[in-house]
Order: sequence, then C-alpha cells, then structure tokens
Amino acid sequence: MSRPPGRKQDSQKISRELFVLTYGALVAQLCKDYEKDEDVNTCLDRMGYAIGIRLIDDFLARSSVKRCRSYSETADMIAQVAFKMYLGVTPSVSCSSAAGNEFSLILDKNPLVDFVEELPAERASLCYCNLLCGVIRGALEMVHLAAEVTFLQDRLKGDAVTEIGITFLRKAEDRKHRRNK
Amino acid sequence: MSRPPGRKQDSQKISRELFVLTYGALVAQLCKDYEKDEDVNTCLDRMGYAIGIRLIDDFLARSSVKRCRSYSETADMIAQVAFKMYLGVTPSVSCSSAAGNEFSLILDKNPLVDFVEELPAERASLCYCNLLCGVIRGALEMVHLAAEVTFLQDRLKGDAVTEIGITFLRKAEDRKHRRNK
Repeated sequence: MSRPPGRKQDSQKISRELFVLTYGALVAQLCKDYEKDEDVNTCLDRMGYAIGIRLIDDFLARSSVKRCRSYSETADMIAQVAFKMYLGVTPSVSCSSAAGNEFSLILDKNPLVDFVEELPAERASLCYCNLLCGVIRGALEMVHLAAEVTFLQDRLKGDAVTEIGITFLRKAEDRKHRRNK
Repeated sequence: MSRPPGRKQDSQKISRELFVLTYGALVAQLCKDYEKDEDVNTCLDRMGYAIGIRLIDDFLARSSVKRCRSYSETADMIAQVAFKMYLGVTPSVSCSSAAGNEFSLILDKNPLVDFVEELPAERASLCYCNLLCGVIRGALEMVHLAAEVTFLQDRLKGDAVTEIGITFLRKAEDRKHRRNK
C-alpha cells in the first residue's frame, strides 16, 4: 500500500490554536504565581529546558539529521528543521558576531502569540515566549552544546520583529582546534 | 498556482510532542500550586473553559459545519470533527442514556499523555486531562448548549480506555418540545 509522503508526520500534528491558548493559560498561571516578571521568565525558561532535554530524542529520531559540523550549521538546523517541525515556521538566521558563535533567529511572525494583543502595562518585562529559549538551550545541551538563549527583540514589546539570540559558549578544545587550523 | 488540498490547514499545525510536553509543564505547575487534586482538576477545567469559549470561533470558521439538529449529532461533531481537527484523533461515540442526552467519547489512545507513564501515588485523584472537559464545556456553552463534561474512565488510572462523559443539560423548552412530539 502506498502512503502519501509525510503522512506519518501529519498524524503527529495538532492544531496550533489549541497549543497557543494552552500556552497562554500556562503563562497566565505563572503570572498569578509570581509577582515579578523576572521570576516568570526564569520559570518559563526552566520549564522549556526540561522540555528541550526530552524533545531532542524525538527530534533526532524524526529528523534523521546528521551531526552538525559548525555552529552555523547548528543554527540553520534549529531554524529550518526544528522550528519547522515543531512550530510550523522557519525563522531566518543571521550570524551576529565575528567570532562566529552568536546567531539570531528572526521571526516575522511568532506562532505562539496569535491570540495575544499586547502585554499588560504591569507586565512590561515579561518574556512571554521564554519557554522557547529554554527548549533550545535544553536540546542543545543534550547534544553537548552549551548555549545562552534569550529574546533580543519581541514584537509583543513593540519591536519590528521577534529575535531569539543564541550564543554558543565555546569549549576549551574548540578554541584550541581553531588556533591549529 | 495549484496547492495540495489541506495545505492551508497543515500550516496551522504544530508538533504534538511540543504540545504534550507543554501541557505536562502546566499540570506540573498546578500540582505545585495546589495541594489537593480536586483543586488542580477544577483549575484545569476552568482554564479549559476559557480556552473553549475562544476556540469555538476558530472551530466554526475552519470547519464550516452546519447547525447540529440533535445532541447525538453534536456529540458526533465533537468526536469526528473537533477532536480530529485539534488533537488529530477521533474518539468513538456512544449514547449512554435512554433519554438521549448522555454520551461517551471513548479514546483508545489519549494523545495528551504520550510522555506520562502513570500518575504518582499521591496524585491518585488527579484528572490529568481535565482541561479537555473544560474546553468542550466552554465551546458548547458558546453555541447555547449547557453540558456537564467529566472523565468517566482514564487509562492513566488503570482503566482499559479513556472515556469522557458529556451530559447535555436539557432546557425547559426542549423538554416541552419533546412532550409535544
């Protein structure tokens, strides 16, 4: 029996609207739990991290990607394969440091904020989508890549785009390797 | 330009794994917040209700369904169109009362519990997926159907299947109408 390509993956999909509204309920609950935006941000990042370290197995199994040979390739993989697979969008990627370890994922449209008009005035420091940073950080750590992941721009805060910054933290061997090149 | 059928809907989809893990984070947070399972269940139901009253517009717009003429048709619609659209599964439906206002949605496989092995012993009364009951209740209320929605069986609690019971609460006019038939 033939089956249309990608059918198996389709059966693993759910509606984005339900996810977006459920995520909104999670953020709202944390805003009830924590007075300070920073605490909500930390909690979202921590939850995302716990998700990332579990999601990486699913990602490696489903994507069948090969090992990335550079930070640049890793950033492209996150944007073009992981974001596409899990959120149905493909951010553009730019390298933002001469050292080649800082990258920006730029989202013209952030699929997580469909139902969010703007942040309430008293929540101006909230990184609404901070879970995503934690997910990326956790997943990278499981493939032995330490990284700092933070929102650099956010359309919810009036920026023109949403930008996630990924800074790969170089390992000692890595620096040595580069010097020997 | 031709476009494969259903392509537009696909673009609205996200990975079930991400949703399932995010939902898990939400339940875990509520378990931290509330000591009693009953309070977590109530909170999940309330969150689901808030989601349902928003999701119904999306459902009506995307499904283009006509008005249901009976409770039975409504139950089928929830199972075959709404569950399929939002969770990618289709529960079977059975009518469980002679009066024709009680229905069961039976899920052989519950897509929300992919990563959950079993409930911890101290959370034996937790209705892990209670958000779904709230979503159904909220969505039905927005089409002027009052209903009680609860889990009747749950595989997480050792039952053979997961069963959601929907009891439509009859309106006075409705009863009168039936008597005049």
